[in-house]
Amino acid sequence: LGLPVITLLSDFGLQDGYAASMKGVILDICPDARLVDISHLISPQNIASGAFVLYATYQYFPPGTVHLAVVDPGVGAERGAIAVRTATSFFVGPDNGLFSLILKKETWWEARRLENTQFRRSPMSSTFHGRDLFAPAAAHLARGAGFSTMGPVCDAVLAHWSEPTITKGEIIGEVIHIDRFGNAITNVQSKMLEELGSLDKWTIKAGKSEVGSIKRTYGRVGAGKALALTGSSGFIEIAVNRGSAAWELKLKSGTTVIFKPADS
Amino acid sequence: LGLPVITLLSDFGLQDGYAASMKGVILDICPDARLVDISHLISPQNIASGAFVLYATYQYFPPGTVHLAVVDPGVGAERGAIAVRTATSFFVGPDNGLFSLILKKETWWEARRLENTQFRRSPMSSTFHGRDLFAPAAAHLARGAGFSTMGPVCDAVLAHWSEPTITKGEIIGEVIHIDRFGNAITNVQSKMLEELGSLDKWTIKAGKSEVGSIKRTYGRVGAGKALALTGSSGFIEIAVNRGSAAWELKLKSGTTVIFKPADS
Amino acid sequence: LGLPVITLLSDFGLQDGYAASMKGVILDICPDARLVDISHLISPQNIASGAFVLYATYQYFPPGTVHLAVVDPGVGAERGAIAVRTATSFFVGPDNGLFSLILKKETWWEARRLENTQFRRSPMSSTFHGRDLFAPAAAHLARGAGFSTMGPVCDAVLAHWSEPTITKGEIIGEVIHIDRFGNAITNVQSKMLEELGSLDKWTIKAGKSEVGSIKRTYGRVGAGKALALTGSSGFIEIAVNRGSAAWELKLKSGTTVIFKPADS
Repeated sequence: LGLPVITLLSDFGLQDGYAASMKGVILDICPDARLVDISHLISPQNIASGAFVLYATYQYFPPGTVHLAVVDPGVGAERGAIAVRTATSFFVGPDNGLFSLILKKETWWEARRLENTQFRRSPMSSTFHGRDLFAPAAAHLARGAGFSTMGPVCDAVLAHWSEPTITKGEIIGEVIHIDRFGNAITNVQSKMLEELGSLDKWTIKAGKSEVGSIKRTYGRVGAGKALALTGSSGFIEIAVNRGSAAWELKLKSGTTVIFKPADS
Repeated sequence: LGLPVITLLSDFGLQDGYAASMKGVILDICPDARLVDISHLISPQNIASGAFVLYATYQYFPPGTVHLAVVDPGVGAERGAIAVRTATSFFVGPDNGLFSLILKKETWWEARRLENTQFRRSPMSSTFHGRDLFAPAAAHLARGAGFSTMGPVCDAVLAHWSEPTITKGEIIGEVIHIDRFGNAITNVQSKMLEELGSLDKWTIKAGKSEVGSIKRTYGRVGAGKALALTGSSGFIEIAVNRGSAAWELKLKSGTTVIFKPADS
Repeated sequence: LGLPVITLLSDFGLQDGYAASMKGVILDICPDARLVDISHLISPQNIASGAFVLYATYQYFPPGTVHLAVVDPGVGAERGAIAVRTATSFFVGPDNGLFSLILKKETWWEARRLENTQFRRSPMSSTFHGRDLFAPAAAHLARGAGFSTMGPVCDAVLAHWSEPTITKGEIIGEVIHIDRFGNAITNVQSKMLEELGSLDKWTIKAGKSEVGSIKRTYGRVGAGKALALTGSSGFIEIAVNRGSAAWELKLKSGTTVIFKPADS
């Protein structure tokens, strides 16, 4: 068995030492923990973006990994604080929908409210639950504390997430994330398209731009040309070969993407 | 006992591999070291900002941690190079005030000048002391070298740090750091306010904006409204609920913040 | 012997979790691996910049380190995928010139094509070879897999790299990298200048600006003044004391830098 792995995701940025404070707290409780940053550059207080990045990443980590995620517009307000256990992993963070994509996918999970005061820093600040509440809980889980000692069983918020709709044979989706390269990730999974027929049969319109059919690789179109392809997380994304689709096609979070059967 | 922890703080940025060069040097000397970045995005050559971020973070790390910090406008000039030991931690870096906030707080400390040539890379470059001088010294400390072998005992620069002043019952402070969220951290600690009476009794003006009294949480004001609260490092900070105080109230490093007793 | 070290360099950025996916895959295969980021902020698809940063950094890591580097404009196109072994280190990534500066410097190396399907994730995505092809190969190497099991021996692309030319006793070089501080690193190594006479004898013109002779430290010129000096990687760089040479002297990648003998 390897050392316990704890990942960290937040909107804290990298300049102020906030993520490092959480790491110090963790190493003080669980000196063996292997710490891996997923991202601290989630757009501030954007729960949906944090949910997507965590969803696209968590499945690649070893069984037993503890995922500590803090994107928390409501710190200090009346949202809950939870730990969640799935068949393979643990999640710790605010109960605001940050884990909803994962919980919708997993067939079994259990949530516990973080009420055990032994697993908190004292005094607990009212502004930095990442350091004083979530980091200690994650560290104790990684160190082997029983999941049931975290607190009582509870529900978890399953925030609404934009789901694609089908109208007259067309699928109406939208952009849910723009990545560093300007690729626009949609909420339509390639397996949904395959269930409705071959991947080849769809023609795509993203915002005001006709993007054509789904290609296997960037190299199938010339430099500067737009294309659609199955992204690395299984969702259809809109890209421009050697360019930025977000910039060149004016795509952003929420832009409508329409999938038409080629024979329509 | 856990593995030795070394933290890194610098203004080197994340794009050029400078911090990674230091980590390579450290792992070559001390293969067991646990490396944790505090920040490499300190504003270039801004000693005060580096001092604040290190101060706000170091106390959360386990006893024995070695903090390697390099914000160094005077590299190659006639500033000294030091290691400092406190009751719980070690610090390695240029002797330019980067550790002054910490040393003013700690009741006991000892500084040594880094004169032991065994703890340097050879030849030593004249431009990258982080890699050639500070990283090796930090690694040898983490590996167990005696503190006294670093070099002779010396003084350390305790740079002036803006201290709040009291005039006619009002406290005149200033902004010393703007964080990623646009929160403006002041140089006034909440314990100073408490020593002069209850936290509740103060009304705050930041720059040209009346911010009102000190709240316990962001949630106590509506979205887009300004508030003052005790930040996670114990200093009073000015924030805007779900917004940026720096942007919306035009605050920056050095902006005056006035604390008035409510009954004045 | 220490734990195996794997470094990561890419143009994936830090916001989307792409680098973290690679780390999850690595830790699943090689739980003991020590992971060190060199940079994930290489300018998108800029092989030359990635090659320079890797070159400037790799030599500081312990023997046996595996360097995983992915800057890959041709993902999915017909470029090869390789592992390279030198006397001290391993390199894994696309065969597109990313390792060429290193291979030109090293006296011995051997490349293998990554054809062993046991060292891949399955199914392998067509867009994220960093996660599905390169990360598993690097992890297996770090875990001790024989280098020859990676695949058959092959050549490696040695992309042309701008080399300085000598005309009438003058050296004509160019800027190859701009770092965070605005320092402009040239393709002229100080040892080349020394072979042609003393370092002191050269006078430098960068773009349209006369920079004067080569100084030993920043402190040798006043604040705001330009200078040339030997950078930490052995190349001559143009800097401005407490300022940005790129900004103030209008330097960028490709700007010509001329070295004249002082007696000409």
